[in-house]
Amino acid sequence: MVAELVFVGTELLLGQIVNTNGAYLGQQLAALGIDHYFQVVVGDNPGRLADTLRQALSRADVVITSGGLGPTLDDVTREVAAELTGRPLAFDEAVWAGIARGRQLKENMKRQAMVPAGATVLPNANGTAPGLVIPADGGKALILLPGPPSELQPMFEQHVVPYLLARLGEAQTLVSRSLRFCEIGESAIADALQDLIAHQVDPTLATYAKPGDVELRISTKARSREEGLARIAPVEAEVRRRLGDYLYGVDDTTFEQAVGEAMAAVGWRVGIADAATAGLLAHRLAQPPGSQAWLGLGLALGDPAVAKAWGLPDLWEGEAGAQGLAEAMRRLGCTVGVGLSTLQVGPAGPSGIQEGWCLLAIARPDGTGSLQRLSARGRLADLRHRLSQGALAALRRSALAAQAQGNARVG
Amino acid sequence: MVAELVFVGTELLLGQIVNTNGAYLGQQLAALGIDHYFQVVVGDNPGRLADTLRQALSRADVVITSGGLGPTLDDVTREVAAELTGRPLAFDEAVWAGIARGRQLKENMKRQAMVPAGATVLPNANGTAPGLVIPADGGKALILLPGPPSELQPMFEQHVVPYLLARLGEAQTLVSRSLRFCEIGESAIADALQDLIAHQVDPTLATYAKPGDVELRISTKARSREEGLARIAPVEAEVRRRLGDYLYGVDDTTFEQAVGEAMAAVGWRVGIADAATAGLLAHRLAQPPGSQAWLGLGLALGDPAVAKAWGLPDLWEGEAGAQGLAEAMRRLGCTVGVGLSTLQVGPAGPSGIQEGWCLLAIARPDGTGSLQRLSARGRLADLRHRLSQGALAALRRSALAAQAQGNARVG
Repeated sequence: MVAELVFVGTELLLGQIVNTNGAYLGQQLAALGIDHYFQVVVGDNPGRLADTLRQALSRADVVITSGGLGPTLDDVTREVAAELTGRPLAFDEAVWAGIARGRQLKENMKRQAMVPAGATVLPNANGTAPGLVIPADGGKALILLPGPPSELQPMFEQHVVPYLLARLGEAQTLVSRSLRFCEIGESAIADALQDLIAHQVDPTLATYAKPGDVELRISTKARSREEGLARIAPVEAEVRRRLGDYLYGVDDTTFEQAVGEAMAAVGWRVGIADAATAGLLAHRLAQPPGSQAWLGLGLALGDPAVAKAWGLPDLWEGEAGAQGLAEAMRRLGCTVGVGLSTLQVGPAGPSGIQEGWCLLAIARPDGTGSLQRLSARGRLADLRHRLSQGALAALRRSALAAQAQGNARVG
Repeated sequence: MVAELVFVGTELLLGQIVNTNGAYLGQQLAALGIDHYFQVVVGDNPGRLADTLRQALSRADVVITSGGLGPTLDDVTREVAAELTGRPLAFDEAVWAGIARGRQLKENMKRQAMVPAGATVLPNANGTAPGLVIPADGGKALILLPGPPSELQPMFEQHVVPYLLARLGEAQTLVSRSLRFCEIGESAIADALQDLIAHQVDPTLATYAKPGDVELRISTKARSREEGLARIAPVEAEVRRRLGDYLYGVDDTTFEQAVGEAMAAVGWRVGIADAATAGLLAHRLAQPPGSQAWLGLGLALGDPAVAKAWGLPDLWEGEAGAQGLAEAMRRLGCTVGVGLSTLQVGPAGPSGIQEGWCLLAIARPDGTGSLQRLSARGRLADLRHRLSQGALAALRRSALAAQAQGNARVG
């Protein structure tokens, strides 16, 4: 089965919004094992949209659209799809009752209750525009989804995935496990797993990279979740054998949560004094639920005079600065002190890209400390994000080392 | 002149990266007044890429591609474009010298010095793959750009914009002014400027919205920057007359910078104690250059016991919490204290969307204070971002009010 994606909206052409639906739906189709070869963005123009849909139906079995289902006159996807498939629109009282429930109604919203003959309605839990599955010639189908990701994503996962799996002719469900890695790049993971990736049939393996953070998704289709997980288990075990040292978590675990939990596991509640990332390190550690277990206090340092009044050193550069900050946090009641020295940056090149570095000091409960250099490259905001990523990885390593030491002492 | 955009890369289809080049190039073309009706994403497949480029050249005068210019075998854009336009590739020593300068070379990088006959080479200041302008039948052109935004954007601005302006037959330059607004939505701006937007010819007006932050770009083409700005000035004056109260800055000014500078202008150096946004408010104020002028210290609060040891209240909820935090920051040496009470959230709906609110207290140098409720809706991270946006807007209003009072006292 081949799919094609069509994104409708002049605001996409004008660049007023970034088309994140393209990446989202691309990932979803890949996980389902459904190929697609083209994604087309077209404006709110009935003629050009009809041409685009006609071409898409000529080269794919299933065409999925997003956008153009709203209540205003420039939203034309529903009408163009009905016309193209020769299925007249009719007002659907049940759909209208669903839209009307608990909402302030405007007359133009009634357009969203118009359903092409023979189409299946997909309920929208997060907005007014329902989705539609419209049969087309040759057993093909047009699937119309709303544009906002907060509406499209749950609708896709709850209603379109089961439809596509059924179309694949399999009473099956998609089962996947995500293994999440830090301190290793996507290409190093691909190298380490080269044979597994080259010969993959089922389960499939796919990597998704962000700076300093790589996800490996192992997916299979199975009659039950248990059956799927059983098929995934040996592949996961082999991946863990090769790359376990870099694995920080599975499935929905965020990197920040994993680092926080590694620290909490050894009773670390850190205080962070930060002259490098504008407070981003503490901000990231403060975000996961339960963060008070590992974060005592995060300081984004601004004015040295204010910091001095708080008992912090007034020089934040170099080794002395980083260590002074970390030790001051310990002295001021945090079980573990973390200091990031003043960010040092090189000259900015075209596009504002520059090198930057700082020192990370960690002062431990037993009075010992560690010091390391973090460096990164990018525009200033990216650079700070990468330095915070490096600091999180270092904190995780330190906490794991403390745990291993503790276990050794117990053992 | 009509353009079309083609994005090449299987990683785009698989959703491994989000196509931000689509929005960037769309904005750039709109600012130049060049229409484009389609954007197509296609994988690294020579046959399908050739079909896509052929169709694009049939419906547009200029086709701009991004991606597929790298050194590896799956990068095929250069070869497909050369074949399609009937222009044989030849190794270009001068281009190779430019690529080779100061780099560790690999043999496969030589492919990037292959140039189709009659093509113009666009230097790449941030990577190895040069861009190409390849003439096509009927006076049309194919413009090949590299995929990474850090390479594509400077190349577009330095080399493609002048090329497109010259093609437009005008020895002209594009001149634009961005007016930036807060505390007003895009649709309210559109309503206030309805007549200007409806009758626009030259200069053109376009809005770009992010949550709580809207940019209005006024653009024109002129023989000089001075001439363009003179044409923009009366439109800008009329916009300022209608919406000046919401205008926080122009051109590259960020919201954070504008808020910081408004505070610095009245001598405010704030200390922030934050139990709501996980330190995001201070992180945003700490990012612009020169932030030590307005930010004394930002605290992301974690463990109440640690905070108490630092002289902060141990209850962070409600009015008493927000005010206690703000007053403690004042007592601890900051000229202005800012307190954000503990984030309160409602139940999460599908996709994790929830309501959330907190109180913002500001303790001023003269001993007076203010208190207000901030609320927002979204997934947790969006919610925190919107609350920080509301807090920044409130800090700006407070600082402007202090400035007006000061002026009144002086006058």
